[in-house]
Formats: sequence, structure tokens, C-alpha cells
Amino acid sequence: MKPQPFNFEDYLSENCKSTRSSFLREILETAEMSDIISFAGGLPNPGLFPVNEIKWALDKVMTENARCALQYAGSQGYRPLREWICNRYYERFGIHIDPGNIIITNGSQQALDLSGKLFINPGDCVVMEKPSYIGAIQAFSAYNARMEQVTLQHDGINIDEFSEKTRSLMPKLCYCIPNYQNPSGISYSSQKRHQFAEMISDKKLIVLEDDPYGEIYFDNSGHIPISFLIPDQCILTGSFSKMISPGIRAGWMVVNEKIKSHFLKAKQAADLHTNNIVQQMIYTFLTCFNIDDHLDKIRGHYLRQKNNLIETAKKYLPEGTKFTNPDGGMFVWATLPDDYDTMQLVDFAMREKVIFVPGKTFFVSGEGNNTMRLNFTNSSLQETEEGMKRLNRALCKYRENLHVMAGL
Amino acid sequence: MKPQPFNFEDYLSENCKSTRSSFLREILETAEMSDIISFAGGLPNPGLFPVNEIKWALDKVMTENARCALQYAGSQGYRPLREWICNRYYERFGIHIDPGNIIITNGSQQALDLSGKLFINPGDCVVMEKPSYIGAIQAFSAYNARMEQVTLQHDGINIDEFSEKTRSLMPKLCYCIPNYQNPSGISYSSQKRHQFAEMISDKKLIVLEDDPYGEIYFDNSGHIPISFLIPDQCILTGSFSKMISPGIRAGWMVVNEKIKSHFLKAKQAADLHTNNIVQQMIYTFLTCFNIDDHLDKIRGHYLRQKNNLIETAKKYLPEGTKFTNPDGGMFVWATLPDDYDTMQLVDFAMREKVIFVPGKTFFVSGEGNNTMRLNFTNSSLQETEEGMKRLNRALCKYRENLHVMAGL
Repeated sequence: MKPQPFNFEDYLSENCKSTRSSFLREILETAEMSDIISFAGGLPNPGLFPVNEIKWALDKVMTENARCALQYAGSQGYRPLREWICNRYYERFGIHIDPGNIIITNGSQQALDLSGKLFINPGDCVVMEKPSYIGAIQAFSAYNARMEQVTLQHDGINIDEFSEKTRSLMPKLCYCIPNYQNPSGISYSSQKRHQFAEMISDKKLIVLEDDPYGEIYFDNSGHIPISFLIPDQCILTGSFSKMISPGIRAGWMVVNEKIKSHFLKAKQAADLHTNNIVQQMIYTFLTCFNIDDHLDKIRGHYLRQKNNLIETAKKYLPEGTKFTNPDGGMFVWATLPDDYDTMQLVDFAMREKVIFVPGKTFFVSGEGNNTMRLNFTNSSLQETEEGMKRLNRALCKYRENLHVMAGL
Repeated sequence: MKPQPFNFEDYLSENCKSTRSSFLREILETAEMSDIISFAGGLPNPGLFPVNEIKWALDKVMTENARCALQYAGSQGYRPLREWICNRYYERFGIHIDPGNIIITNGSQQALDLSGKLFINPGDCVVMEKPSYIGAIQAFSAYNARMEQVTLQHDGINIDEFSEKTRSLMPKLCYCIPNYQNPSGISYSSQKRHQFAEMISDKKLIVLEDDPYGEIYFDNSGHIPISFLIPDQCILTGSFSKMISPGIRAGWMVVNEKIKSHFLKAKQAADLHTNNIVQQMIYTFLTCFNIDDHLDKIRGHYLRQKNNLIETAKKYLPEGTKFTNPDGGMFVWATLPDDYDTMQLVDFAMREKVIFVPGKTFFVSGEGNNTMRLNFTNSSLQETEEGMKRLNRALCKYRENLHVMAGL
């Protein structure tokens, strides 16, 4: 008998087999090709990165504290940075958080992964908005979660539907993005935050509130996180990716004292701690420069980019297409007339050198055929106009092809 | 009926409950107190960090390529850095690796976590050396692995015992550290590497070869990784922590083409990608400076530190204590006479302001009572002498206490 050759795939864990791949990451890599206009990735506008300030802050850390910054460090993260985060919450919302309840992570994505690791047994139910962030769907799928989605209305999640699904599905975790949601751009109204918190507070489930865009608002000074309304059963994330830069991979989570030690063990096992030079650089940047001036610049710029995108999209996308009009964040959600299939359209778009994310990607059970996510932060006003023209050409070819196919 | 208060711990996953905490991390945090002399942590000598070169490299990246370095990047890692790693393997061992088979991770710790995620179902058996690295024990415990250890002899793992245990336990994964092992300092001889590879090659199991110390050798130019002898069933890790700095959290894994896409999905779900500025800084550092000159400096220094530690330890530790004499790496393993209990001793040591890791920490089933791990890289020659004197005083008090307890 000939021995079977060794095959790695025979050894995969059940969780690994259940992990979804991300259309998003593949798209990001395509979008690196310079002649493509991308409405796809969730890339902040690189023109707004505070390059000189970061360079100066890195230099300062390397001049004043290099040997400490280059050494191993504690898993929880650089304490002065955790203190800054707490002060910021206090300034914005009047809420006291102890720096001992902050853990620095590699972007908020790691907070999602660690939360999956801590709470999800295979088959446990996770409820999330419909549509929801693909990176969260991926992170939870890696723990073999059963995911259910609840309709997102113009002012936040549908409370009645949530309540009903919770009764029947007994979810362990609810994942939500109440501010300028990725992918829809929708925010929970103040009223809905309170309704949601009240509804949750007598349910046996954990809320994982993801807030990467909370500081990127166009309307007022931002909304209070739901986690501050019902702190005993919530985990809140935050991120420096949109405030400063995503390439530095730094975010945080606010965790309850009762669960902190478990998160710290999980963080240790995952990668010991987050990059130490970068943590010190961020702290230096935040304390030596005026972060509000920087954020105001981003907010003003993104607002103009959003308005421009919606305006040009209305000109070039099919009649009857509906758009969200976000008060912050980086995405507009477009719903084309019913008979459009954006998963097919994206192939035509790529041939015209323009790209977006088909909305279906953000649904766990195959809906959203006629939807798309449009990022407005990564293209200039001129590129946006040109990109929409290309999308219009792709739409023409898509329709021509449908007619040809229908005629066969 | 009064409603039960919400309790986070009721919601923990089975895997989370099985995760071990790390004595090591707690010790690292204690060791940050400046008046303690630490033989405990696995801290490289901060005096040897190439501070000026790193500062220069960071400045160069921020001057020439900032907006790209600060943006989101691909999950696999910065391609020029992956190419450098492949060239290095070719120079050292004449082995061709394709940059497409390298994934950049947050230190090699993340490679262990991702491997656990990819392969371990709850209850799957992982075989490792006895003793073994605590961070690996912790990472695999987070996937509820059943861990078994195989005796480490002076020239590497006990092949007969390994072979026997493999037959009876049917492990899915073998974790090993063939170069200057943490915690023992032991290396596999060239003969044992070939014997081990041959024995493994007709077994149905994956080898995860951890090689963070491979470039920190004192004897010759280092040994060939076992992964290059049986590439079809191995995963190899590497790390910049000991070559450059651990605070930057950068390492890599060499993965088979058949398994690569699964690792990339797992890396995406975990944290999207490793810090991009740091990856570009490392590449700049490696190509603009002579890494071999830098490594030779580390090697010479660590060799002197090791010799000094063994010499002074022989003076101050109990008669009959045996020491390994590593040809590289950062640790010496001490075996005290049978009746010593180093877990008790460490309390006395901390009162004398000196610290080490009790050996028991590195065993999965409570052996090694009379052993300790001594790090020789993080204390100067003078500190080492003073630390050993303090350890001698701790030993006296430990023995006095035993006599008092015996007299009660």
C-alpha cells in the first residue's frame, strides 16, 4: 500500500473551516493598483495623515525614551495612553473610566477577535445589525458562531425585531456599531440608544459596542456610547485608525473589572502586547499637538467628500437609487432598484477601473443583492466624479449584457 | 423573585476557561520595579538595542514613504521585508523560500496563537518538549489543547519517548524549539535533527518549529531548521525581537502553500495586518545597516554574560546544582538538589529583591519543583554578581524557614 502524502488541510480545526474569507481584503489589495478608483476599501484619506507630527513624535520617543520603548512591555498597554483615553471620555461625556479598565489592542479588530475567543463556543448565537461589518462577521465565524442579523432602520436597530429574535434565539452576544455604521453610515438616534439600553438591561446577553468612527462626526459632538448607559454588560471598543492612522494598528477596549483578567490572558496568549514604540508615539502626538484641530480638519474634509459623492452618485447611478446620508464616518450605502445585482456589476466595474463593495458581503444570509457600500474618504473630489462616470459606463455594459443574455 | 445581577463570567467560552495565566507576564511587570535584579523575564539587553539606527530608519520611512506606511496594508506583510527574510534563509542554509510563503506576525507569539486557531479542536493532543515555553503552553491552552511533554535530553528531544507517545496519543501537532530552547537553553544536535525529521516524516502530525533565537548563537553559524528537512509538514517561525527589539512586536512564519490561505484568513480576522510603519522601518534598518555586525556584537556580549552568570551561580547556589551551558539564546537552566522547591524559594527571593522563574511553570503536569530558569541577558556583569548574592541570602532564609517549619 502506498502511503498517503501529507496533507495540511486534513488537520484543520472545525473553527478554521468555518472562517469566512474577506472580499474586503482582496479588494484592498486590488485597490493598491494605482489606476483604479476605489470606493471599496475603508481607507481614510492619506492626505490628512498628520505626517510631520507623527514623525516628530516618533523622533521624540526615540530620543527621550528609546530603550524603554523598544523593550517588552505590559499586556494591558502604555498607562499614560490609557489615561489619555479615560480623560477623553470624561471630557466628551462626563463619564469616569479607570485606566485599569482600558486594554490597548492592535486596532479595534483585535478587540473583536479577543471577544470572540472569550465568549463564543461553537454554535453560540451572535446577533448583529443587518447589514454589518465584514471584519466582525469574519472574526466571529472563526469561533464558529451562529450569526443572526436584525434590520437596521434609519435611526438604528429595529428594537421589536431584536427583542423577538432574542427571545427565540437566546444569543450570547450582541455586536453593534451605533455611530456612522460600517457599511450603512447609519447612526442610532439618542432616543433609540436609550430604548436599546433599556431593552438589553433585563436580557442575559453581552453587548459588544464597536466605535471606530465615534470622533469622525459631521453633525454635533457625537453621541454617548450605549456602553455608558448599561456599563455592567457591555464591552466598548475604540480606534486610532481614523483619528490618526490605520497603518499603526492601535485601538483599545473598555472592559468591565469582572472580565478584565480574562481579556488580559487572551491578549498575552495572542501576541504578548501591542507595539510599544507606537503606543508611546500616539501618546506623545496626542499630548503635544491639538487633536481637536486635527479632527476638525478631517471632519470638514470628509463632510465635503461625502456631499460630493452623494451628489455625483445621484447623477450617474440608476434612477430610483436610494442613498443614506451619514452624519459621520466614511461610508454611504446605496440601494439600487430591485432588479440590479451588484455582485455581477462589480465585475463590469473592475473592467472600467472603478471598484466598490457589493452589499451582499455584509449580510450573513445572502440578501442585499441590489446594494453597495461606497467609501467617500479615499478619493479626491475629481476622482469621485471620474469614478462615478466609470461606474456609469459599467452600468451601461452590465445592462447591455443582461439584454444579450435575455435574448439568448 | 429578585432578578440575578448580570455576571460576565457566566458567559465565558470553554476555551477561555481553559486558558492558563502566565506567571511570566506577572513577573515582567514586577521586574519593571527598578530596584529588583531580574533573572526572570526573557528581556534582551536594552543596552544593545540599535537605537540610533532604528531612529534613523524610522525617520527615513517617515520622510520618504509616510502616507503609504501610515495606511492600511495587506495581511501578509510588507513584501520587501518578506524578500529579505527569504534571502537570509538562502544565505544561511542554501534553501529557497518564496516570499509568498512568509507571513509577517506580531512577534512569533502570534504565529503560535494562529497555529492553535488553525489546527486545534478542543481536546486535540499537542506534544512538546519537557520543559517548554510558557507562552506556547498558554497559547495552546486557549484552544483547550491536551498537552503532553517529552523529555528533553542534552542533545534534543528523546526520540524513543516521542515515538512511543505519538503512537499512543495520536497528537495533531508537535511544538518544538530546537535552537537554544526557552527555558532550558538546550539545542538539538545535527544528528538529532535528522533523526527527528526522519521519525516525523512517516507520522501524521504537524511540526510547529519555533525559532526566535536562531541568530543568537555563540558556537558556529547556527543549525538548519528541521522545517527545511521535512518542509511538507512543518510551520517555522522567526522573530525580530532578539535580533532588533521586542517592543516592535514583529516576527514571521514560513508556511506551506497548501495552508497559507487559511493562515491569511486567520491573520485578517485577528488584526487585519501587522504594524506597517514598523515593518518598513525593519526593512530599512536591515538593508541600510550591517545586521551581521550588529548580531556579532550581541553574540559576543551575551556569551560573556552567560559565562559570568554560570560562574557566579556556581559560587552562590547550593552545592550539587547543575546548569545547562547553552550555545546561544538567553537562558540557563538550573537544577537544584532534589529537596529544593523553587516555587517557595521565589517568595524569599522577591523579598531580597531578586527574581527568577520557578521551573515548574514550564511543565504541564507539575514537575520540575527543584528547577529554575535564569535569564542572563538583562543584567550587567555587576548586577548578576549582586543578584546571585541576593539569591544566596534568599536560599539561607528559605532553609532557615524549612528548619523552623520542621521544628514546629
